[in-house]
Amino acid sequence: MTRTIYILNGPNLNLLGLRQPEIYGQDTLADVQALCEAVAGEFGLALRMEQSNWEGQIIDWIHEARDKAAGIIINPAALTHTSVAVLDALNAFDGPVIEVHISQVHKREAFRHKSYVSLRADAVMAGFGIEGYALAMRHMGGLLAK
Amino acid sequence: MTRTIYILNGPNLNLLGLRQPEIYGQDTLADVQALCEAVAGEFGLALRMEQSNWEGQIIDWIHEARDKAAGIIINPAALTHTSVAVLDALNAFDGPVIEVHISQVHKREAFRHKSYVSLRADAVMAGFGIEGYALAMRHMGGLLAK
Amino acid sequence: MTRTIYILNGPNLNLLGLRQPEIYGQDTLADVQALCEAVAGEFGLALRMEQSNWEGQIIDWIHEARDKAAGIIINPAALTHTSVAVLDALNAFDGPVIEVHISQVHKREAFRHKSYVSLRADAVMAGFGIEGYALAMRHMGGLLAK
Amino acid sequence: MTRTIYILNGPNLNLLGLRQPEIYGQDTLADVQALCEAVAGEFGLALRMEQSNWEGQIIDWIHEARDKAAGIIINPAALTHTSVAVLDALNAFDGPVIEVHISQVHKREAFRHKSYVSLRADAVMAGFGIEGYALAMRHMGGLLAK
Amino acid sequence: MTRTIYILNGPNLNLLGLRQPEIYGQDTLADVQALCEAVAGEFGLALRMEQSNWEGQIIDWIHEARDKAAGIIINPAALTHTSVAVLDALNAFDGPVIEVHISQVHKREAFRHKSYVSLRADAVMAGFGIEGYALAMRHMGGLLAK
Amino acid sequence: MTRTIYILNGPNLNLLGLRQPEIYGQDTLADVQALCEAVAGEFGLALRMEQSNWEGQIIDWIHEARDKAAGIIINPAALTHTSVAVLDALNAFDGPVIEVHISQVHKREAFRHKSYVSLRADAVMAGFGIEGYALAMRHMGGLLAK
Amino acid sequence: MTRTIYILNGPNLNLLGLRQPEIYGQDTLADVQALCEAVAGEFGLALRMEQSNWEGQIIDWIHEARDKAAGIIINPAALTHTSVAVLDALNAFDGPVIEVHISQVHKREAFRHKSYVSLRADAVMAGFGIEGYALAMRHMGGLLAK
Amino acid sequence: MTRTIYILNGPNLNLLGLRQPEIYGQDTLADVQALCEAVAGEFGLALRMEQSNWEGQIIDWIHEARDKAAGIIINPAALTHTSVAVLDALNAFDGPVIEVHISQVHKREAFRHKSYVSLRADAVMAGFGIEGYALAMRHMGGLLAK
Amino acid sequence: MTRTIYILNGPNLNLLGLRQPEIYGQDTLADVQALCEAVAGEFGLALRMEQSNWEGQIIDWIHEARDKAAGIIINPAALTHTSVAVLDALNAFDGPVIEVHISQVHKREAFRHKSYVSLRADAVMAGFGIEGYALAMRHMGGLLAK
Amino acid sequence: MTRTIYILNGPNLNLLGLRQPEIYGQDTLADVQALCEAVAGEFGLALRMEQSNWEGQIIDWIHEARDKAAGIIINPAALTHTSVAVLDALNAFDGPVIEVHISQVHKREAFRHKSYVSLRADAVMAGFGIEGYALAMRHMGGLLAK
Amino acid sequence: MTRTIYILNGPNLNLLGLRQPEIYGQDTLADVQALCEAVAGEFGLALRMEQSNWEGQIIDWIHEARDKAAGIIINPAALTHTSVAVLDALNAFDGPVIEVHISQVHKREAFRHKSYVSLRADAVMAGFGIEGYALAMRHMGGLLAK
Amino acid sequence: MTRTIYILNGPNLNLLGLRQPEIYGQDTLADVQALCEAVAGEFGLALRMEQSNWEGQIIDWIHEARDKAAGIIINPAALTHTSVAVLDALNAFDGPVIEVHISQVHKREAFRHKSYVSLRADAVMAGFGIEGYALAMRHMGGLLAK
Repeated sequence: MTRTIYILNGPNLNLLGLRQPEIYGQDTLADVQALCEAVAGEFGLALRMEQSNWEGQIIDWIHEARDKAAGIIINPAALTHTSVAVLDALNAFDGPVIEVHISQVHKREAFRHKSYVSLRADAVMAGFGIEGYALAMRHMGGLLAK
Repeated sequence: MTRTIYILNGPNLNLLGLRQPEIYGQDTLADVQALCEAVAGEFGLALRMEQSNWEGQIIDWIHEARDKAAGIIINPAALTHTSVAVLDALNAFDGPVIEVHISQVHKREAFRHKSYVSLRADAVMAGFGIEGYALAMRHMGGLLAK
Repeated sequence: MTRTIYILNGPNLNLLGLRQPEIYGQDTLADVQALCEAVAGEFGLALRMEQSNWEGQIIDWIHEARDKAAGIIINPAALTHTSVAVLDALNAFDGPVIEVHISQVHKREAFRHKSYVSLRADAVMAGFGIEGYALAMRHMGGLLAK
Repeated sequence: MTRTIYILNGPNLNLLGLRQPEIYGQDTLADVQALCEAVAGEFGLALRMEQSNWEGQIIDWIHEARDKAAGIIINPAALTHTSVAVLDALNAFDGPVIEVHISQVHKREAFRHKSYVSLRADAVMAGFGIEGYALAMRHMGGLLAK
Repeated sequence: MTRTIYILNGPNLNLLGLRQPEIYGQDTLADVQALCEAVAGEFGLALRMEQSNWEGQIIDWIHEARDKAAGIIINPAALTHTSVAVLDALNAFDGPVIEVHISQVHKREAFRHKSYVSLRADAVMAGFGIEGYALAMRHMGGLLAK
Repeated sequence: MTRTIYILNGPNLNLLGLRQPEIYGQDTLADVQALCEAVAGEFGLALRMEQSNWEGQIIDWIHEARDKAAGIIINPAALTHTSVAVLDALNAFDGPVIEVHISQVHKREAFRHKSYVSLRADAVMAGFGIEGYALAMRHMGGLLAK
Repeated sequence: MTRTIYILNGPNLNLLGLRQPEIYGQDTLADVQALCEAVAGEFGLALRMEQSNWEGQIIDWIHEARDKAAGIIINPAALTHTSVAVLDALNAFDGPVIEVHISQVHKREAFRHKSYVSLRADAVMAGFGIEGYALAMRHMGGLLAK
Repeated sequence: MTRTIYILNGPNLNLLGLRQPEIYGQDTLADVQALCEAVAGEFGLALRMEQSNWEGQIIDWIHEARDKAAGIIINPAALTHTSVAVLDALNAFDGPVIEVHISQVHKREAFRHKSYVSLRADAVMAGFGIEGYALAMRHMGGLLAK
Repeated sequence: MTRTIYILNGPNLNLLGLRQPEIYGQDTLADVQALCEAVAGEFGLALRMEQSNWEGQIIDWIHEARDKAAGIIINPAALTHTSVAVLDALNAFDGPVIEVHISQVHKREAFRHKSYVSLRADAVMAGFGIEGYALAMRHMGGLLAK
Repeated sequence: MTRTIYILNGPNLNLLGLRQPEIYGQDTLADVQALCEAVAGEFGLALRMEQSNWEGQIIDWIHEARDKAAGIIINPAALTHTSVAVLDALNAFDGPVIEVHISQVHKREAFRHKSYVSLRADAVMAGFGIEGYALAMRHMGGLLAK
Repeated sequence: MTRTIYILNGPNLNLLGLRQPEIYGQDTLADVQALCEAVAGEFGLALRMEQSNWEGQIIDWIHEARDKAAGIIINPAALTHTSVAVLDALNAFDGPVIEVHISQVHKREAFRHKSYVSLRADAVMAGFGIEGYALAMRHMGGLLAK
Repeated sequence: MTRTIYILNGPNLNLLGLRQPEIYGQDTLADVQALCEAVAGEFGLALRMEQSNWEGQIIDWIHEARDKAAGIIINPAALTHTSVAVLDALNAFDGPVIEVHISQVHKREAFRHKSYVSLRADAVMAGFGIEGYALAMRHMGGLLAK
C-alpha cells in the first residue's frame, strides 16, 4: 500500500515568493517542498509535489492519485472559489484530503471566502504561511498512522 | 453534408463506472458508446465520442464540430455550472445541441441547479442514467430526419 | 401487479396545438397519446392519459395511481413552479416518476426555472417537443423491465 | 350562537397514516377525529372535520364557517406555503384560527418554513403529531369559555 | 364577431361588501355588475360576469373566452400573486386583457406587489374601488371601437 | 374651496408623441390636455397641466397644490422609480392622488416595477395609453363629488 | 430514571405580566408555574422552572439537564433568534425538547421569524399565551408515557 | 516579556468527548491540554487553558490577555458565528491570534460558515480534530521565535 | 479664515412645521435658525442657512462652501437615500460635515435606512427633533476650537 | 419621581482610551462620566454610569432602570448589532432612550450598520466622539424638562 | 446634416482638477475641451461641451441634441448610478452615445458599478483619465464617417 | 527595458468574424492585429498578439509578460466573468493593464456584467468593436510615454 502524499498547487503558485510578497511571503515552492520533505521523513512518508496553472492538469493528477497516493494536500489557489470540476475529482478520491491556503483568505475579498473544495476536504487551514503545508503533512502523518 | 454526431463529455467522466457508483451507476463511457452506436445505426448516423478534463479541449472540439458535426450531445459535467466559455462556444454552433446529465442534478446540491449550457441547449435531460445518451441520440435522429 | 403508466398533464395543456404554436408546436394531446401508445405496445405496457386545469384533480389522480399505476409520467405545466401539493402527492407514490416539459423551460422566464416536482422526479426532460413523452415512456419501459 | 369548530385539512392529508409514516406517523384522519371528539365533549363543543385536495373547496368551507363555526383549526398542508387565497379567506373569518402541522416543518425543506396562514392564525403549532389537533381543540375550548 | 366582455373574479370576491369593508368597501359584485352593464350599454357591448374560488374554474372560463369573448377584464384576487396557470391561460387568449384590483395593492403587504398576470395584461389598475371595473369597461369599449 | 386638479408630468414627457412611439403612442401632451379638459367640463372641474424635466420643479408644484388644488394626477415618469423627494412632497398633500403611467410598466425592465409614488397614491394605473389621464380625471370627479 | 421536566425561560421573561401586556398578557411566571404543576401532577412528573437574562446561565442549565431531566420545555425568548450556543447545548441533550413562545411570533417583526432552536426542537408552538406551557407539559407527559 | 499562550474555549466545549462524538470525537478538554502542554514544552512556552459558556467571561479573559499573554488560541465554538463582542475584544489584543475548530465547519450547516472571529484571526483551521490545537501551538511557537 | 457654518436643508424641509407634524413637529426652519444662531453666538461662529427642493442647488451651495464655510451641517432629507451627487459634492469639501435628521429615520420605512451621505459625514444624528441642529452646531463649535 | 439617568456601556468599552485610539480616541470612560456630570448639573439631573462585557448584566440594569431611571443613554457597542434581548429589555422601559456610538459606525464594516437597538431608541447619534454622551445628556435634559 | 458632437458632463465635474486629484487627476474641463477640439479638427467635427450639477439641465441638453447633434459623449458622473430620467432622455436620441468615466469606477464602491446609462450607451469606457474623452471623440469620428 | 505590448485574447475569439457577426462584427483577429500594428508604429512599440481557448495558456502568457512586456491589453472573453485565476495572474504583473470587450457587454445577459478582471485593470472599455483594441494601444502608448 502506497505511503506517498500528493501535494498539489493551483494557478499562479509557481510565482510563490515572487509576486505580492506582502501577502504570500518570500519563500518559494522549493522551500515548501523542503519543509514537507522534512516532516515526511519523520513519518516515513514519500511525497510528490506538483504545480500547474491548468485546471485540467490538476484534475488529471487527482485521478492519478486514486491509485498512487495515500492522501492529498491541495492548495487550489484561485480554483478554490470557481472549480466544481476539482471538487468532483476530489469526491472520487477515497483517502484524506487537506486544503491549505497560505494567506488568511477570510480577511481578503468576499469572493475568496467561498470554497468548493471545502465541501470535500477533511480539514482546512488558512493563514499559516508556508508552514501550513508542514502542519498539514504532520496531520496527514498522524491520520495514516491510525 | 455531414451525418456525424459529436458526443462530448466533461471533467471526471473518464471515471464513469469507477467513482461514486451510487450516484452514477456502474457502466463506463465505453458502455455509453456502445449504446449510442446502436441507435446511430438505426438512424444512419455516425458518431464521435470524446472526453476531457480540460475545458480548453472541450471548446476546441466544439469549434471543430462547426464543420464536422450535424449535432452535438454534451454532458458538460462540472463545466455545466461554471463555464461561460463552453456556452459561448456552443453559441457559435448552428446545429441542434442536447444537454445530458446522468444523475438527476436537481435533487443534488444547489450549485448544481444552475446551468450555463441550458441557455443554449435545445433540449435538456437529467436522471436517465446512461440511457439518457441513447434517448438523446434517438431525438437527434428524429430532428435530422426532418 | 399493474403494468399501467399514468400520463398526467397540467393546466392549459388541453390547448396543446392550439395556443402559441411557436413555443409548443402544432401537435395535440391526442397526438401525444398515439405516440405513447406505440411505445407502450413495444414494452407491453398499458397507459392512461389525463389532463386537467384543476390542481385538485391532478392530486386525486396521483393518489389513485398509488394502487393502479406502475409509474407516472407528468407534465405539470404551470403547477411545476407553484404547487407544493403536487410534490407532496408524488412523494406518496412509490414507483418511478418522470417529469416532462415540451418546451425548453430553462430558456424562458426565470420563474419557469424552479420546479417543485423535480425535488421528487427520478428523471426530468425539457425541450424534446411531444417526442419527450415517447422517450419518457421508453425509459419507463426499461426501468420496469429491470 | 354556534359551538361548532371546523377542523379543515389540506391536500394529501387523506393519505395520513398511509404515506411516509416516518414523517407523519401511522394514525389516520379518523384517529384524529376520535381524539378531537373526546376533547370537544369535555368542553361542550361540536366539530365538523373535512379534508380536500382542492384549494377551492377549502376556501368554500372557510366561507361557510363565517356563519356556522365558532372557530377554525386548520392544517393547510402544502397550501400553507403557497396559497394567498386561503389566507384571504381566513382574513374574512372573525373567530379564532389555530394552524396545526403534524410534523415539525421547521426542520424540513426551507420552502416549508414560510407560512401565509401564519399571517392570520392566532396560534401555530408544529411537531406534536396528531395530538397537536387535540391540544388545539383544548386551547380553542379555553378561548371560547372566556 | 363577438361583442361580449368576460369579467372574471378570483377567490374570495364572492364576499365583496361583506368582508373587510375598510379595505374593499361595501358594494357587492352585483353592484359591480350593474355599474359595468351601464357602461356596456354606452358602447354596445354585452358582458358575462363570473366569480369562483376555484383556480381551475377561472382557467376554464379563460379558455372558453377564446371563442366567446372580445376582451377580458380580470380581478384575479389572490391568484394574482401565485398562479402561473392563470397567466398561461391568458397567454392563450388573443384579445385585450385588463387587470383590475379594487384596493391599492402596492400599499399592502409585500407579497401583494408581485403579479404574474401583469406579465400578460395590456393595462393594470389598482385602488379605484369598484369604479375601477367601470373605467376598465370604458377603456375596453374604446379599444374595441378602433 | 378649490375645484382645480393638478396634472403633473415628469421628465421626458415633453417628448410625448415624438419619442419611441411604439411604446408611448403618437399623441402629445396637448392631446392629453384636451382629453382631460373634456372630462373636467363634465364634472365642473378646472385643471392645470404642467410638465418638467426638473425634479425640483415637480416638488414645487406639489407644494403649491397644497393650497390650490383639490387633487393631483401625476405621471412621475422616471422619477417614479428613483425619487423619495417626490414621495415626501406628496405625503404633505392631503387630497386624493392618482398615479398614471401611459405604458404598461410591469412588462418593461425590472427597475420600472418599483414605484416610490405608489406608497402614497390612492390609485394607480398603467398601460391605458393617454386615455389613462381621462379615466383618472373621471375617477377624481367621482371622488370629489362625494 | 428521572421524571423531572426542566422549564427554561430566556431574557426578559422575568418581566412577564409587567411589560407590554398587550403582547404578552398579564399573567406572571408564577402563574405559568402553577399551571404547569397542575399538569405535572396529572402525569406524575416533577418540574423545575428557571429564568435568566444571561445566556451562559441558560446553557449551564441545559447541560445540567443532561443528567437530571427527562425533557426540556424552553421559551428562549430573544435568544431564539440569535443564539447558536443554546442550539448547540440542546443538541447535546437526548430527551424531548419543546419550544414555546407566548406570542404569535410569526405575526411580529421579520427577525423574530427565524429560530435556531427550532433546528433542534421536536415540537414548536407560538401564540397560545401562557397556556402554551401547559399544553407542552401535557404533550411531554404523553411522550414520556410511551 | 510573557511567554504564556491563552487557549480559550467557547460554549459547550466543556462537553467535549461527551456530546455528539461522531462530530467532535471522544477526547476531552483535558486531553487537549495535555497535547498542548507537550508542544509548549518543546518551545519553552507556558499556557493557560480556559473554557466558559458565558460570552462575557470569554471577553474578560481576552482583555486580561492584553497584559498576560503572548498569543491567543481560540475555539470560539458557537460564538464564532454570532459574537461581534468577541471580535472587538480580539481587535484590542496585539499579539497573534489563531482560530481553531475541531470539526470541519464548512461541511456543516450554512450558518456555521460565517465567522466574525476570522475577520481578526491571523490564521484559521478546521477539521483537524483536537490535534488542531497542537498544530496551532506549534505555529504559535514558530511565530514567537521570530 | 472663515468662521461661517453652512446649514443646508434638502427637499420638502420648507414645509417644516406645516406637514406631518406627528413626524416632524410644529417648529419651522425659522425656529431652527434662531436656535442655531444662539449656539453660533456662544462659539463666535457665523452661519448661513439655506433650503432647496432642487438637488442641483444643494450641490452648488456645497461647492460654494469649499471657499466660504468652515463646516457643513446638512439635513439632506429625501436626497439622503438617493443622491450620489450630493455625496460626491461633500467628498470635495475638506472641513467637518455633520448629517442631521429630525425624525428617527431608522424606525421608519426600510428605504430610509440607507444613507449615501453617511459615507462621508463625520457624525450623524437622527431623532433629536429640531434641537438636533443646535447640538450639531455645538459639536461643530467644539471641533473648530481644536 | 426619579431624576436619575442611566448611562449604560456595552462590551469592550472598559478599554476606552486604551484600545484602537485611532478609532475611539484617547479619553476613558471616566472622562465620559466627568463630561456627563457637568451637563447633569446644569439640568438638575443625577446619573449612574455602568459598563459590562456581559449582556445579561446590561439587561438586568435596564430592568432596574424601569423603577430607578428617568431615561437611558446607551452605547450598546457590539451588542448593537446582535442582541435582540437588549432590544426587548429596552422595549419594556417607558422613558426616553438615546443610542450613542463614539465612532461613525456607518463608515465601518457593513455588519456595524444594522442596529437592533435603533428599533426602540428615540434618538441615535454616531461619530461625535465622547462628546456625543454630553450632547445626549443635554437632549435628555431638555426632554425631561417638558 | 449636423456635424456637432455634444459632450455633456454631470454633477461635480466643474470641480475637475480641483477635487480629489488622486482619483480624478489635475486636468480641468478646459483641458478636456482642448483635447477634444484637437480630435474634432482631425475629423471635421464641431463640438459643444457643457457641464451641470442639475439633472434637469442635462436632460434638456439631451433633448436639444435630438435636433442639433450627430452624437453624444456623456460623462454622467453621479447620475450614472441613479438617474432613470437621463437614461430615458438618451433613449429618445437616435445617434451614437458613448459613456465616459475618468476613473476606473469598477474598482471603487459597489454602488458605482451599476450604470443606468450603460443600458443605452453604444460604448462605455472607464479609467482612461481625461484622455478617455479624446478616444471617444476619435471613435465617434470613425462611426460618423461610415 | 522592453517596449512590447502583449495583446491576449480569451476563449472563442479565434472565431472572431466567423461567429455571431451581428454581435461581434465581421473583422477577424488578423484585422485586429493590423490595426494595432499601425498604432504601435506611431508610438514606437512592438506587440505580441495571442489567443487561446485554454485558461492555463492565458495565465502562462501573463506570467511570461512579467519579464517581456511593458503592458497588457486583454480581452478575456468568457473568462472575464468566471476566472479568479486570470485575475490573480494579472495581480502579479506590475505594468498597466487594459481590459477590452468588443461588444457592449452591459447590454447583454446579466452574468456578463460582472468582471473579475476589472478588479485589476487600470482601464476598461466595451462596445467599441475591434477599434477598441486600437484605442487601447493608443492609450498604452501615452501611458508609457510618461
